[in-house]
Amino acid sequence: MKDSHVADDVMNAAVELFATQGYANTSVQQVVAAAGVTKGAMYHYFESKDDLLFGIYDSLLTLQKGRLDEIIAAAAPDAGVDEVLRAVCVDVLETSIDYIKQGAVFFRSMHMLTEPRRQEVIRRRRAYHDEFAALIARGQREGDYRTDIPLAMLVAHFFSDVHYLSHWYSAEGPESKTLVASQLTDLFLTSLRRPDA
Amino acid sequence: MKDSHVADDVMNAAVELFATQGYANTSVQQVVAAAGVTKGAMYHYFESKDDLLFGIYDSLLTLQKGRLDEIIAAAAPDAGVDEVLRAVCVDVLETSIDYIKQGAVFFRSMHMLTEPRRQEVIRRRRAYHDEFAALIARGQREGDYRTDIPLAMLVAHFFSDVHYLSHWYSAEGPESKTLVASQLTDLFLTSLRRPDA
Repeated sequence: MKDSHVADDVMNAAVELFATQGYANTSVQQVVAAAGVTKGAMYHYFESKDDLLFGIYDSLLTLQKGRLDEIIAAAAPDAGVDEVLRAVCVDVLETSIDYIKQGAVFFRSMHMLTEPRRQEVIRRRRAYHDEFAALIARGQREGDYRTDIPLAMLVAHFFSDVHYLSHWYSAEGPESKTLVASQLTDLFLTSLRRPDA
Repeated sequence: MKDSHVADDVMNAAVELFATQGYANTSVQQVVAAAGVTKGAMYHYFESKDDLLFGIYDSLLTLQKGRLDEIIAAAAPDAGVDEVLRAVCVDVLETSIDYIKQGAVFFRSMHMLTEPRRQEVIRRRRAYHDEFAALIARGQREGDYRTDIPLAMLVAHFFSDVHYLSHWYSAEGPESKTLVASQLTDLFLTSLRRPDA
């Protein structure tokens, strides 16, 4: 019980420090001091600073991929693709707002991961994007979505909004997470629709 | 003559190193070695590593703001706002592709700038975004663009695509800069249009 607290406290301190002062500028000593644990306790869970960084990617990728699979599996057999894609978009935007500090570290520090782990993150993001792209492709086959723009660009067009959240979204701002997620989804789905559909 | 080469060579080496290995991991020594100049020659132009980083922001912001002002000034008096906004979007996307490495450093390293300079970058980006927002607001007043989504979010929706380019665009990919810029602009303008317009 107490042990898992140590791991969580260390991860939370790492996210906070990597997000505010950058990964390269943060020492393991600063992380353990902020978490209020000893170096020995931290090394029981994490072998290195790279482990901490990878932990951020791992938990966010696992969470979002799990939710994507769930939404697709839970969709009614007769659900239109637009309805499923809307639910997926809203979910990834909302969870990205929930984990906005992790997201800031995610995109900013990818080049800091050791190479095998950077490759793993790329591979797992690609798996997510492929599943997302398959939904758009289904909408194209069914005649709802435009086909004049490459699928990869349509996918990038959506994930650019996810990515950019940490640059402008503020929880103290006037707009709630739910509203922001639904408005960005609406902009994306509007741009996707076949002009004459 | 020779002197300005030194400054350019140093800046180009800095962009290359900051983009590939990160700002924090790059030493002044590595920059001068890559540029093939002496430290003394570099310090004639740049006082510190922070000067090099700020130089990247300064030149990109100056270039893009200058072009934005030019496009707006050159628009025919009877040009529709959609035509002007399209030209602006295409231009910022194309120049962002031209300077894609600078862009990668731009977004990734903003938190590494010393505070007064970070504030200056924020202020100058805001001035750019305000001018961009004014075009959308004009389109809203003229009845072309939707008004159900806050202006700030519409602006963020566009700049997210600009921002994300360095994460997926490849000059070796199948799509030319011109095509990518026009397709992303088209997606943006489509999402902006008033549903019943």
